[in-house]
Amino acid sequence: MSSTELDQLTSAVDGAMVLAERLFTDLRTHTAAEEGVSRESYGAGEQYAHDQVAAAAASLALEIAVDFAGNLYLTLPGRDRTLPGWITGSHLDSVPNGGNYDGAAGVIAGVAALAAMRSSGLVPATDVTVMGIRAEEASSWYSGNHGGHLGSRTVLGMLEPGELQAAINVKSNRTLAAHMREAGFDPDAASDKSKLLPRSKYKGYLELHIEQGPVLDNRGIPVGIVTGIRGSARARNACCIGAYTHSGAVPHEYRSDAVLATAELCHRLDQAWEDVRRSGGDLVFTVGKLYTDPGAHSITKVPGETRFTIDLRSQDLATLEKMVALAQDLAAEIGARRRVKFDLGRFNISEPAQMDADVRRRLVDGAAQLNVAQMSLPSGAGHDAQDFALAGFPAGMIFVRNAHGSHNPHEAMAMPDFALGTRLLAWMLLN
Amino acid sequence: MSSTELDQLTSAVDGAMVLAERLFTDLRTHTAAEEGVSRESYGAGEQYAHDQVAAAAASLALEIAVDFAGNLYLTLPGRDRTLPGWITGSHLDSVPNGGNYDGAAGVIAGVAALAAMRSSGLVPATDVTVMGIRAEEASSWYSGNHGGHLGSRTVLGMLEPGELQAAINVKSNRTLAAHMREAGFDPDAASDKSKLLPRSKYKGYLELHIEQGPVLDNRGIPVGIVTGIRGSARARNACCIGAYTHSGAVPHEYRSDAVLATAELCHRLDQAWEDVRRSGGDLVFTVGKLYTDPGAHSITKVPGETRFTIDLRSQDLATLEKMVALAQDLAAEIGARRRVKFDLGRFNISEPAQMDADVRRRLVDGAAQLNVAQMSLPSGAGHDAQDFALAGFPAGMIFVRNAHGSHNPHEAMAMPDFALGTRLLAWMLLN
Repeated sequence: MSSTELDQLTSAVDGAMVLAERLFTDLRTHTAAEEGVSRESYGAGEQYAHDQVAAAAASLALEIAVDFAGNLYLTLPGRDRTLPGWITGSHLDSVPNGGNYDGAAGVIAGVAALAAMRSSGLVPATDVTVMGIRAEEASSWYSGNHGGHLGSRTVLGMLEPGELQAAINVKSNRTLAAHMREAGFDPDAASDKSKLLPRSKYKGYLELHIEQGPVLDNRGIPVGIVTGIRGSARARNACCIGAYTHSGAVPHEYRSDAVLATAELCHRLDQAWEDVRRSGGDLVFTVGKLYTDPGAHSITKVPGETRFTIDLRSQDLATLEKMVALAQDLAAEIGARRRVKFDLGRFNISEPAQMDADVRRRLVDGAAQLNVAQMSLPSGAGHDAQDFALAGFPAGMIFVRNAHGSHNPHEAMAMPDFALGTRLLAWMLLN
Repeated sequence: MSSTELDQLTSAVDGAMVLAERLFTDLRTHTAAEEGVSRESYGAGEQYAHDQVAAAAASLALEIAVDFAGNLYLTLPGRDRTLPGWITGSHLDSVPNGGNYDGAAGVIAGVAALAAMRSSGLVPATDVTVMGIRAEEASSWYSGNHGGHLGSRTVLGMLEPGELQAAINVKSNRTLAAHMREAGFDPDAASDKSKLLPRSKYKGYLELHIEQGPVLDNRGIPVGIVTGIRGSARARNACCIGAYTHSGAVPHEYRSDAVLATAELCHRLDQAWEDVRRSGGDLVFTVGKLYTDPGAHSITKVPGETRFTIDLRSQDLATLEKMVALAQDLAAEIGARRRVKFDLGRFNISEPAQMDADVRRRLVDGAAQLNVAQMSLPSGAGHDAQDFALAGFPAGMIFVRNAHGSHNPHEAMAMPDFALGTRLLAWMLLN
């Protein structure tokens, strides 16, 4: 790209920030929750985001399509429409009471990049498609045995049999398949190979996303280039069944206390995590939900039940498998000793994924040409990009600096950083 | 008592079991909850029980009175009405989804004993008053800084200043004072000494109650004579505040994980409990409620908050005080190390209470005369009897064998055991 073209691109992306800001504000206002935003997978908030993004695409005269799972595709024709084109995108749902940028930033960056191409007259070599993906945060809205990322994994043909039926909405108790159908889409088409995303039509997948950890913020660097994505092992429906008895009258040897058993399990897994860290391994361990039964618990009852979740993440599949085995062993040992019964359920495994080496090299090269400060770093969180990578797409990710983490109302991405990331994304998409 | 009188009493108590059964069945049917029964302190279920017991008393032509706190008094005149008389009773509320016998058995036993006196013509030496006590289970329905047993402690003049205002209904978020007033009573009278229960009018307090532990059931003995009652130290509103962050993207050193901190606190208190037991001390430790925030928690978020309760019970006040101090120390130490802030709130202390030695001797004597197999044992649970004892009443308790513990829908007291306990109670009340 000539230096004139680089200048054209930079100034066009800066100009497209008006559109981006308008979309961010619109989404923040119209999908506001008690705190932050709530855009439920296949719910009203997610649909609102899809509608607004599609409206913006229409105003740019992009080609608009929606697949059987409700994923949105916005295409700008390239110079040679017969060649495989780029696909870029992210998800438009959020966690409950989450932040405005996790997911949406990637879709809005794609739209802004195409808007910049339209306004500058720069035409990409091949078609560029922005994808608004469904249900990446399905783990926050749906319990049951499913692997999350259900929008991308559905259309990539990566579902386990019955997975859309096994995901149960935590509020409605109905299946994700039912909610998908109610939203106007067709879960049954997931088994029809002709409806899946054709790998041959695309040359690769790019995703811009806010960094969900503190690394870029702490280092003072606006943009990250992702090396690989942690995999996860998740138990969504773990429980411990003991027996409700009187908290004062029943001596220790007759108790089956679900809370103290669960506390020991958590604490011992916590200690195992410390061992992994000490030996230099990569792991995070989270029990994000843990609760006694509000209909049955009391300060004066030995608790007869807990329900909880386990989320293990690592860049090393063997570490995940070792921790899952340890959790099962500890549950059996503690359960027998404490007269309770743990049922951790099935752990859903999502494999760690590497970003494509050539894509990474080109991102580093582009950042240098555009004068965008960057560093390479792994992603601790899962992303649709890992599913594309595991499905054989050369994949790359651009992180944008973000304070206060994500999955909470306090996400704080600065628009100048977002503009730098979008500039790099647009540069990649043009080539 | 002559052997003819003993026979008369035995057969009259057996005859009164029809009334007792009818009352138990009526309460079980009309205060049924999702599981078991729910008779909320100052709620509809408790009031229903008061109404039915008062109706039974009316049919026995007993004198009926209600005090400013809603406690019910049913009096059978004795031979000499000028002498201090017995008071016997228990509470008519239950825990949520609790069993039908915890509390109600003591009131119904009193009514059945008076019915047996009416039918046999045996007249007690002094007045006998059956008391239907309010809100013994207030700890299950009201959070906030209060000491529980609010019906008896109110009329015994044992409240802390503002205690009825500090107890907050977990469903309505309104004070117990407000609920008491709404039920037709007068919380403000608690500060009027002339309205309190006059100690001089009574010779002592007797309470029949199902055993809430498994001791009598395991030993095959129908009746227990209580030696003393465990005190308690309770934190009703403990919490741990961390920070919600992404469960995958945030490394260990940046986390403030409320669940893992709370799990460590629980596990270490559990270990301290083990130390107390090993050294022969008396203690039980229960975290009956523990929960992350259902509006904010997610499998993919580091949990930013837990709420939980602590219930410590011991026959030794020093053991309770030592454990409270340990809990506070551990909370500070773990909080600092794990970057979270524990607030255990104030521990409400209820002192251990001894049953009156003379009352106990007479109960043992009565059981021998009536041929009722009994054993002496401490009460692990708290009872209104402890408040009467601490207020200076000579107090005694009769336990009735009960399977499956209490504070759950599976309480299983056999009526023949209840008849034996009631026989012993009636024998005491006659003298």
